[in-house]
Amino acid sequence: MTPTIGVFDSGFGGLTVLRALVARLPQARFAFLGDTARLPYGSKSRRTIARYAAESAQFLVREQGAEFLVIACNTASALALDAIQDAVPVPVLGVIQPGAASARAASRTGDVLVIATDATVQSHAYTAACRAQGLRALEKACPLLVPLVEEGWIEFPASFNAEPRAAQAEAASPQVAQVAVTAEVIRIYLAELLAAAAAQGLTPDALVLGCTHYPLLRPLLERAVPAGMRVIDSAEAAAEAAVKLFNGRATLPPGTPIQEHIDLQCFATDSVDKFERLGSRFLGRPTGKVSLVDLGG
Amino acid sequence: MTPTIGVFDSGFGGLTVLRALVARLPQARFAFLGDTARLPYGSKSRRTIARYAAESAQFLVREQGAEFLVIACNTASALALDAIQDAVPVPVLGVIQPGAASARAASRTGDVLVIATDATVQSHAYTAACRAQGLRALEKACPLLVPLVEEGWIEFPASFNAEPRAAQAEAASPQVAQVAVTAEVIRIYLAELLAAAAAQGLTPDALVLGCTHYPLLRPLLERAVPAGMRVIDSAEAAAEAAVKLFNGRATLPPGTPIQEHIDLQCFATDSVDKFERLGSRFLGRPTGKVSLVDLGG
Repeated sequence: MTPTIGVFDSGFGGLTVLRALVARLPQARFAFLGDTARLPYGSKSRRTIARYAAESAQFLVREQGAEFLVIACNTASALALDAIQDAVPVPVLGVIQPGAASARAASRTGDVLVIATDATVQSHAYTAACRAQGLRALEKACPLLVPLVEEGWIEFPASFNAEPRAAQAEAASPQVAQVAVTAEVIRIYLAELLAAAAAQGLTPDALVLGCTHYPLLRPLLERAVPAGMRVIDSAEAAAEAAVKLFNGRATLPPGTPIQEHIDLQCFATDSVDKFERLGSRFLGRPTGKVSLVDLGG
Repeated sequence: MTPTIGVFDSGFGGLTVLRALVARLPQARFAFLGDTARLPYGSKSRRTIARYAAESAQFLVREQGAEFLVIACNTASALALDAIQDAVPVPVLGVIQPGAASARAASRTGDVLVIATDATVQSHAYTAACRAQGLRALEKACPLLVPLVEEGWIEFPASFNAEPRAAQAEAASPQVAQVAVTAEVIRIYLAELLAAAAAQGLTPDALVLGCTHYPLLRPLLERAVPAGMRVIDSAEAAAEAAVKLFNGRATLPPGTPIQEHIDLQCFATDSVDKFERLGSRFLGRPTGKVSLVDLGG
């Protein structure tokens, strides 16, 4: 029987982690839970986040039979990984340690920058995980980036780069004005972060995306970072780590066919409409029907 | 004994309504509850919002002795006013009907625009309240404005308008770049809304601020609206309506002294730090110590 991988997030941003997992384990079964009734975890206390995350993890293990959990939520990984591991009898993997390990592999100077939500930054979990890798990290909260991603102000029109004439014609278009706002917000945040790094004598050469929404901003971030700075995606790093751990425990029989349609069931605690509407942008394919579950919160 | 007015919001944005109330009733006692553990209501379903709001209202009435409730939250006013009124035995006033009445008083054309959160717009509560006043309303969700207010990207430096030379020097300053982002977001949202109004043959001459965070954007919004368009603040309108209702029920004895320090106690269900840090910006004075309460959510 195909093992089930449970993937959990406070919202649907963690679908970027699921996307990276599906690409690497197309034969596995996946159950994704977004605790949308209680998002965002980013503005809540450690105590509250730990309780919510433990309840969500128990749903995936007890009700959905998950034999392995990926916490595709930086805030929960930062503040509640121990509480989640205590709440369920299966292996639990977060996104922060893999992100730090990936930064270690990418950085030559040993200095890295991290952007994330307010709660993730205040936990200093990335700083601790980077220190364990021998890295010096400087973190910055960027609270406007999640709502900009959810508004969809993230992509220049396809013609914008390809055809200078079309670009000129579209320069005043609403879509270009929107993504220009996001580019300017990124510029402001990075300028503040780079100035703070310089003031501390750091010479960073890697930027860790410490929020599962941020992979959708990767093209804009790649344009905005100084030349030579690597952009590290925690979602990709976590998927890599999960595949290694998963294969060590439950290698699929050789010859297991890759399914044409991925075996995925999505659950949300509220806002199923928004999940279905925006989720496909994060997953890179339709989420299918999202089932509403009540965790009593 | 001085009567207590209970003021409720999902977060601390409703402090703009409390500010308007305190200015009009400096002799009253106030108890404010921000249900910060479960914010934002804006992304949640009617069922969930109704349960949260009813629990919060019961706390203010049963535990704090509120004899009158102002729901200083557009989402809860839009989706849960009946549920709240059913849950408590005291009069309950929302912000939407007063906002619509104020728009009626301001508009000559009978066409008005409303900006609000996603959930408030999807409820069409302002459209219904405006229709009851004989107004045609067109609503638009502006999800980026709340996080921009909470980031504090809202004020040009004091010198920016006063001294052209200083303005030039500061044009490249981080603070100016930040508020320029907010001004551009407002321009984009209003352009979309005005285009949609024109396409429907509307000739709007009033813009209703249907979110308690938006009064902090009022200077930027006043600059951005077309000449002759009035900006209507639901927080001010609700405070006016509350004073009328309140005085009809519990007029204070003549000569009741105006207190030097307002009699106000703030409660939050989580994130007391953020409440205390940002709340004063909304209230226009320090919030004092915010007490943590557990509503079991």
